[in-house]
Amino acid sequence: MEISPASPCEQTNSGRLSTASRGKFPNGTTSSCAYLERKMRSSRLTVVGLGSLLGPRKPFGSFDRNRKTANNQHHGSCLVLEADRDEDMESVVTTGGVTWLNGGIWRDGETPAASATLFQDRGFVLGDGLFETLVVRRGQPVLWREHIDRLLATGTVFHFPLPVDFPEYAQKAAKVLLEYANEPSLQLGTLRITVTRGPGTTFGLDAPNEPSPTLMLRLTPTNRKSRAYPDRETAWIVDQPRIDTNSLLSGHKTTSSMWRILAHETARHHGADLALMKTLEGDIGEADTASLFAVIDEIIVTPPLNRGILPSTTRAFVIAELEAATRGLEERLIFPDDLDHAAEVFLTSSVAGIRALGAIDGRRLPEAVPVSKWLDTNYEAVDGHF
Amino acid sequence: MEISPASPCEQTNSGRLSTASRGKFPNGTTSSCAYLERKMRSSRLTVVGLGSLLGPRKPFGSFDRNRKTANNQHHGSCLVLEADRDEDMESVVTTGGVTWLNGGIWRDGETPAASATLFQDRGFVLGDGLFETLVVRRGQPVLWREHIDRLLATGTVFHFPLPVDFPEYAQKAAKVLLEYANEPSLQLGTLRITVTRGPGTTFGLDAPNEPSPTLMLRLTPTNRKSRAYPDRETAWIVDQPRIDTNSLLSGHKTTSSMWRILAHETARHHGADLALMKTLEGDIGEADTASLFAVIDEIIVTPPLNRGILPSTTRAFVIAELEAATRGLEERLIFPDDLDHAAEVFLTSSVAGIRALGAIDGRRLPEAVPVSKWLDTNYEAVDGHF
Repeated sequence: MEISPASPCEQTNSGRLSTASRGKFPNGTTSSCAYLERKMRSSRLTVVGLGSLLGPRKPFGSFDRNRKTANNQHHGSCLVLEADRDEDMESVVTTGGVTWLNGGIWRDGETPAASATLFQDRGFVLGDGLFETLVVRRGQPVLWREHIDRLLATGTVFHFPLPVDFPEYAQKAAKVLLEYANEPSLQLGTLRITVTRGPGTTFGLDAPNEPSPTLMLRLTPTNRKSRAYPDRETAWIVDQPRIDTNSLLSGHKTTSSMWRILAHETARHHGADLALMKTLEGDIGEADTASLFAVIDEIIVTPPLNRGILPSTTRAFVIAELEAATRGLEERLIFPDDLDHAAEVFLTSSVAGIRALGAIDGRRLPEAVPVSKWLDTNYEAVDGHF
Repeated sequence: MEISPASPCEQTNSGRLSTASRGKFPNGTTSSCAYLERKMRSSRLTVVGLGSLLGPRKPFGSFDRNRKTANNQHHGSCLVLEADRDEDMESVVTTGGVTWLNGGIWRDGETPAASATLFQDRGFVLGDGLFETLVVRRGQPVLWREHIDRLLATGTVFHFPLPVDFPEYAQKAAKVLLEYANEPSLQLGTLRITVTRGPGTTFGLDAPNEPSPTLMLRLTPTNRKSRAYPDRETAWIVDQPRIDTNSLLSGHKTTSSMWRILAHETARHHGADLALMKTLEGDIGEADTASLFAVIDEIIVTPPLNRGILPSTTRAFVIAELEAATRGLEERLIFPDDLDHAAEVFLTSSVAGIRALGAIDGRRLPEAVPVSKWLDTNYEAVDGHF
């Protein structure tokens, strides 16, 4: 059976890439804080606003931590978001998160310790940042050291001004964060570590002579997508942007992620959930945020790291598991045609784990996915530790 | 005469890419706000800190607006920067700036209208933003409409959720900003417009269904580098990252600028001021933040836009000036060897204007630069307007 990509009209209903989804800037005519507060109290609707263009700049507290409102992300700033349905609101709001930023720490809905004036930060204006995303399982980060090591390696390549004690500093911060967030709902979570080159001299490219990096850690509850068929994710092989396998930037996790966003949006435009990304030579390197594996002619294959792909910690875990089970693995180029007769195609990443794809370019993949199920079970059993 | 690139030891003195320049995170042992305040009052030194790791989270006001301290960038957050010399401090601090963010407006040193909690903004975590940088001359932005049009064009390519009334909205914001900043020191300034896809659902790539873009405008005094020889900037032709001329991302101004930063840092590593960037095919496309022109065999040449370069407003201005003066221009590929016998090589950009390079790859360029001087004079005479 074929899965057709959604037509532009169908896409409209999801609010993506359509006129209906065009963003709204704060409305200068209606968004006094008092107005917003009344509006929120009187209905399930909330209103986009962050003060008015020329209006009063009255600080504003949290409305209600237990309501599904976005203002608790922006405590003190009067920002709330508009939504017609609870589902829309859920798509915007990240609830229950805890943020650590340069020594300050707070839950969503609490007043930030620091005012977080990141507007001059090179991470914000230039994408001059590195990051790692880990899964937190039963209160501890999985593959912590591997992630920190990868961040350090990227920092070296990019002349990133990481302090010499970065690993210890980040670990201390993460422990503080995890302790602060000690709630049952955060026993399975996502921990994102973001480090930027900090405030810039100007908006030019010159890094400051005395850099003061920004470190942010944020922990949010993980909401895994079901891996049960037919809810498996679908992929689209996008033509560009392509991976330049010779680029120093390839294979690194930076906050300059626009090329991945563009690939992802293109896949979504074709009705798929995510993108498979080609190299300049036309083989598939990786998914937009995951590594690629396939079972072809009973051999498990994955692209080699020289395809400009991320040296993924979960990819390394999978390879080690296969070796431990004396199950063969072949690192080789994977071209789009190779996936036509794959028994399984699966992606691996820290947070989402090992998940089999349901379809590629609208063509459904087999229902039986024994290899990826076995690997996912093994990965899910891994406990975290520092 | 040859200009040798600085050795790694020489680089150390400038604080770049050396151990001495490694960043410092806020020091958890000393940085209570009260301590910082005492420290700042007692000496020219200031201390890096943003509260302590586990210490008090006391809000903190401005120390002294007239002092060269960085805390006024971070009003209320207790962040100050360490510097042994005034020059170092100046390299970090941007003074006299005015920021407009989602309806709030403030000068450096004033309390932000909004708390600017950008830590979940996709611009910060994913580089999911667009920007324009304009020069403000005698109180008005130069080539305003051209910059807005380019931002809109990029927004369309990247499915960016710009509101339909974005041009009017941005213009209104810019006018408010310019009026607020009405000081002689800002008669020549840099206006940066940054727009991001706003707060994200998660740290994944999925854009929110109901996007709420972030708009920031920031105006700072412009400090032009002297164009008089021997202070002319020097360039280094870097091998990578290369420009993929087929990529949709090439030729657009996004906040995912890590590839330009990496090229720039590589040039600085070789003792040059900026990078000239090659395409995958080996011709030079543009400088890291400027367009490239050269005078070769009495013909003015510049790479065509199909080299994946920015459709620069200043480039267009230069071409129009040359046409108006019936002075020939040839758009053609420029390879590194072509620059060996160039009479002039010059860069063009909105803020820095038209400036002749002093050297490329350590080889000095001729002192006489009549074409670039003529063009720069013409560009400097252009008045701004909305």
